[in-house]
Amino acid sequence: MIVVMRLDSGERELNDILERLTELGLTGHLSRGVERTVIGVVGKTYPELRDMLELFPGVDEVVPISKPYKLSSREFQPQDSIIKVGPLTIGGDELVVIAGPCAVESEEQVVETARAVKASGANILRGGAFKPSTSPYSFRGLGEAGLRILARAREETGMPVITEVLTPQDVELVSSYADILQVGARNMQNFILLDEVGKAKKPVMLKRGMSATIEEWLLCAEYILSQGNRQVMLCERGIRTFETYTRNTMDLSAIPIIEKLSHLPIIADPSHGTGKWYLVAPLALAAVAAGADGLMIEVHPTPDSALKDGAQSLTFENFHKLMDQVASVAASVGRKLAGSTKG
Amino acid sequence: MIVVMRLDSGERELNDILERLTELGLTGHLSRGVERTVIGVVGKTYPELRDMLELFPGVDEVVPISKPYKLSSREFQPQDSIIKVGPLTIGGDELVVIAGPCAVESEEQVVETARAVKASGANILRGGAFKPSTSPYSFRGLGEAGLRILARAREETGMPVITEVLTPQDVELVSSYADILQVGARNMQNFILLDEVGKAKKPVMLKRGMSATIEEWLLCAEYILSQGNRQVMLCERGIRTFETYTRNTMDLSAIPIIEKLSHLPIIADPSHGTGKWYLVAPLALAAVAAGADGLMIEVHPTPDSALKDGAQSLTFENFHKLMDQVASVAASVGRKLAGSTKG
Amino acid sequence: MIVVMRLDSGERELNDILERLTELGLTGHLSRGVERTVIGVVGKTYPELRDMLELFPGVDEVVPISKPYKLSSREFQPQDSIIKVGPLTIGGDELVVIAGPCAVESEEQVVETARAVKASGANILRGGAFKPSTSPYSFRGLGEAGLRILARAREETGMPVITEVLTPQDVELVSSYADILQVGARNMQNFILLDEVGKAKKPVMLKRGMSATIEEWLLCAEYILSQGNRQVMLCERGIRTFETYTRNTMDLSAIPIIEKLSHLPIIADPSHGTGKWYLVAPLALAAVAAGADGLMIEVHPTPDSALKDGAQSLTFENFHKLMDQVASVAASVGRKLAGSTKG
Amino acid sequence: MIVVMRLDSGERELNDILERLTELGLTGHLSRGVERTVIGVVGKTYPELRDMLELFPGVDEVVPISKPYKLSSREFQPQDSIIKVGPLTIGGDELVVIAGPCAVESEEQVVETARAVKASGANILRGGAFKPSTSPYSFRGLGEAGLRILARAREETGMPVITEVLTPQDVELVSSYADILQVGARNMQNFILLDEVGKAKKPVMLKRGMSATIEEWLLCAEYILSQGNRQVMLCERGIRTFETYTRNTMDLSAIPIIEKLSHLPIIADPSHGTGKWYLVAPLALAAVAAGADGLMIEVHPTPDSALKDGAQSLTFENFHKLMDQVASVAASVGRKLAGSTKG
Repeated sequence: MIVVMRLDSGERELNDILERLTELGLTGHLSRGVERTVIGVVGKTYPELRDMLELFPGVDEVVPISKPYKLSSREFQPQDSIIKVGPLTIGGDELVVIAGPCAVESEEQVVETARAVKASGANILRGGAFKPSTSPYSFRGLGEAGLRILARAREETGMPVITEVLTPQDVELVSSYADILQVGARNMQNFILLDEVGKAKKPVMLKRGMSATIEEWLLCAEYILSQGNRQVMLCERGIRTFETYTRNTMDLSAIPIIEKLSHLPIIADPSHGTGKWYLVAPLALAAVAAGADGLMIEVHPTPDSALKDGAQSLTFENFHKLMDQVASVAASVGRKLAGSTKG
Repeated sequence: MIVVMRLDSGERELNDILERLTELGLTGHLSRGVERTVIGVVGKTYPELRDMLELFPGVDEVVPISKPYKLSSREFQPQDSIIKVGPLTIGGDELVVIAGPCAVESEEQVVETARAVKASGANILRGGAFKPSTSPYSFRGLGEAGLRILARAREETGMPVITEVLTPQDVELVSSYADILQVGARNMQNFILLDEVGKAKKPVMLKRGMSATIEEWLLCAEYILSQGNRQVMLCERGIRTFETYTRNTMDLSAIPIIEKLSHLPIIADPSHGTGKWYLVAPLALAAVAAGADGLMIEVHPTPDSALKDGAQSLTFENFHKLMDQVASVAASVGRKLAGSTKG
Repeated sequence: MIVVMRLDSGERELNDILERLTELGLTGHLSRGVERTVIGVVGKTYPELRDMLELFPGVDEVVPISKPYKLSSREFQPQDSIIKVGPLTIGGDELVVIAGPCAVESEEQVVETARAVKASGANILRGGAFKPSTSPYSFRGLGEAGLRILARAREETGMPVITEVLTPQDVELVSSYADILQVGARNMQNFILLDEVGKAKKPVMLKRGMSATIEEWLLCAEYILSQGNRQVMLCERGIRTFETYTRNTMDLSAIPIIEKLSHLPIIADPSHGTGKWYLVAPLALAAVAAGADGLMIEVHPTPDSALKDGAQSLTFENFHKLMDQVASVAASVGRKLAGSTKG
Repeated sequence: MIVVMRLDSGERELNDILERLTELGLTGHLSRGVERTVIGVVGKTYPELRDMLELFPGVDEVVPISKPYKLSSREFQPQDSIIKVGPLTIGGDELVVIAGPCAVESEEQVVETARAVKASGANILRGGAFKPSTSPYSFRGLGEAGLRILARAREETGMPVITEVLTPQDVELVSSYADILQVGARNMQNFILLDEVGKAKKPVMLKRGMSATIEEWLLCAEYILSQGNRQVMLCERGIRTFETYTRNTMDLSAIPIIEKLSHLPIIADPSHGTGKWYLVAPLALAAVAAGADGLMIEVHPTPDSALKDGAQSLTFENFHKLMDQVASVAASVGRKLAGSTKG
């Protein structure tokens, strides 16, 4: 932590800070510049220290220099985290594709979709049983009945299943059906939920909050990791900006940034990231080119009668076309589709 | 709902849409403009219909015209909602001031603060027992012990108490101690929590999410109202923008907007809204001038040793000075401090 | 400037940086923390140095600590800048009110408005002769004819005139008519225009760009100041955020922040800041309560037939009502309306 | 344009609006829904009409349905605009790569860079002679001397040259040296400059403003097109968001959106879009995968001694590596590098 003094501060202000640091078992290392004096704080600092030091007279600003996250950082663990889900590995050389409907509506819808996306090369089935909904008057999901349908589709197709868990009480229930637990964007900072999925024995996919910085997102991963669950993957799904044409603005730079700062795998969700089906394919390909470890794509047998997010869902045919292109772009950045026998 | 057709669309595309509307028990009302044809959808529309219609060939965009929130709207209830908390009324002519420390640290700290803010004219005591924290390594609150301390301070001073509830399981526990339940910004769209506080018998203060539009915020109030709890007040606490000098950007226009769109009371929290103690007083006065029904201010006996958010906390002395100015600005916009014998 | 090294960097990386600093005539001051080593750069640093140092192997980040603006900073000039416009002073104890139509449409419209706003207590007349317009098909102003109308209204009423200059070539022309030159939000970073108004002999009001940070804004003021024109005032007019209910989000915290960081006067424009006439009064009062040195308000004889921005313009009657409240709020924060004989 | 009435409005409010529309030569087409009545305005509407109608009593909101831009829209011109620059075509099947230093520093620097990027497959040389700079104390470019250096590099290498023009007076001068005129992000809404480049005989590349919506950007293209210059290409270079890790947030969804809404070519600038050299390659590849018509990349012989934007510049070696990958990703989305003899 660096304390930057005001131009008009004097020795007395400096000494007050140095004394306080000593009381706290820290050392202040003085550096007098041409313009300003700065104090380097040596010792074990903590976030609240910044607030405290900013209140001292004569201080202009306090700049933290340690990263607040540890377990999720690449400095802590240089090699990539690789998460195993059945025969799949996420975060290694293979590109994983998660596909399925936004919401579980019926067994027929889910099983039919699962078969179609599997045939096109998808590896993992998605489908929401508990749905966060902006309005209390919208469809909120089938609940446990939806989980049973997902399990049935897994039996039918052999595909592992990812589904969202909305609240701490449901973690055990959802874990008993799902292969991967999803924490949604709106719950990224639901810290009690993060604690709970941190204690679960299942991999967790943590979506980026709509207004979360990369650092805040990694700190939420840190909540899960610090409870002992090291099977964490991240998912970029668009952030909120002033642009209204798209539902969110997909921040694809997050993909190489996460790869630089962290060892955790990073998945891209262009369906939520754009909100419009005709933008899904170009952004999916872009995400693969940028280095994503996987894609998550919404697919529905009949998007125009979907109970949720039909406008961003691909038809089976459009998904099939996309997968051909995904394979080609993946190859050109040195990756192979998981489970593919080609290449 | 209005369906706007593309310039190059024809009769066939129009007819397909009109037929589908008929199937759904709705009517399409055609309006042919000089440039574009639009279809007014008559009947009971719902949010998912927009997605469905946008997928039809020939459609340029679909514009919803009903407001998605009802119970919280001023069209539904023209007169102001007034919430009673003991002898206080929130949302009427009086201006209510909530003050206290960010986090409950000790009985001494809370009781001392309660006495000081009461003496300066505050009406309600705040203090966090369960604290959401960006980092898992930061102070997360004293939990139930913190609630007991708040109850003790209420006994000592007679001030009602507001405190945050973080998760559905805790609603009953927190309700047994608190006079008002606070739902924090990070939990604004924690829908299961909203359902739970909607069933509680206590008033709820719902903070605006960091990236929530006014409409989304009112929809979250709608979650609580639709469960039967009509004692809902809103709290503007700053939104996330590109500006980094402040922790958040306080959106004071939200105050008159909420007053126009909704009958619910609106409180302003300049402490979180700015993140810096020296900005709290000017923004607090601004919020009162803009028509806020109340203020929520963080006060700490010794901000520079606070366990949380010291940088945005006022000292007793600064809070006292602020209250004098608040009274004066309130008077100039036709309001009186609650409990004040002056005026 | 502080160079923060990576955890895995070594002596060799450190030495490379220290050598380069020496070559540049700077000194590197080493501070070895428990976790990280940092280098304090002593000497005359410059913005490009940051880019250069970030490219060295072993560097995690480079943190600038000098403020990039000088002449506009309160550290450079502790006492408030006070700008004289005829008998008025802007930036002192008095609150100045600028009012008038968005665009100059006709002599009758401007003179009638000038008389009305003067009668209600306004001090300076505004009106756009050169209008920036989002669309090339919208009204773009009367040009020099508009300037002549403003001059005519000044003769009639004695009010000084502020009007926007859009491009460097027009600075001389506009200066020959206006008492204050306005640089609009879209031109905040039109650096050639800033140079030109910096050479003019008239006071300049610099509006904040829609996506400008406080620091970038002060750097633009610095452009003007560094050309020798010290009569600069700033104007907060809303920033762009994700909220769509208002045209912009008015950032009232900018008022006390500018007051802290700079000696320049700060004006608030709630008309552009909100885009809706019924929000103008509450935000105007809020700006005064937050400490603004002045207000800029759009007023039109018949807003529903205005050629530009009618939706955010006040009628004469609404402006008159507002001025009464402005006087009252101003008094409660220790200020007096300029030119007022009351108080 | 659609006028949505309030629930509590009556016949009188409706009639007032219908009468006014008739006075303006427009027709109001009434549609009475279950909840609300809406008026479809038939006739030639214009942006200011919205403001006017919103001021009528009983109106809830006014929704424009025509697009405000015409000449730039794909509805107006369904086939792609293809811009010829010497033997190159921009906007067709080929992918064009623009490369060179941020700022022109010396003839040696520019010529050396031009040769290197040409050898790696770049098609057009970039380099700034007039530089917009956030601070008045930073390097602002060599001016006309810089233009002469660019012309010299063109002679040496045969590469066409793109360079920025900052102000209307310089359009003629810059046109006499450059093959393509660049309008920078800060000048996107410098309407006088847009008028001027609209009269020039050279192609124009219009960068997206930092806080510009897609619609505003197309309206600025409309300024140029409506002056008669149809050789306009757009450039996405990142928008301003709350994320601070990158200088801007590159909005790659803008690429397929522009392709859908407009016939104009779209270029991606990942150097400014990210601000960090190690993010340039992944985002460049992503832009190609998303369908960009071209890339603009900053390359410098020695980024760590660049006078401007060194942190985002590639070395010759890194640019060379990138071009191999670009060719491969381009091929997988059905495109070929311009001038390439491969494929």
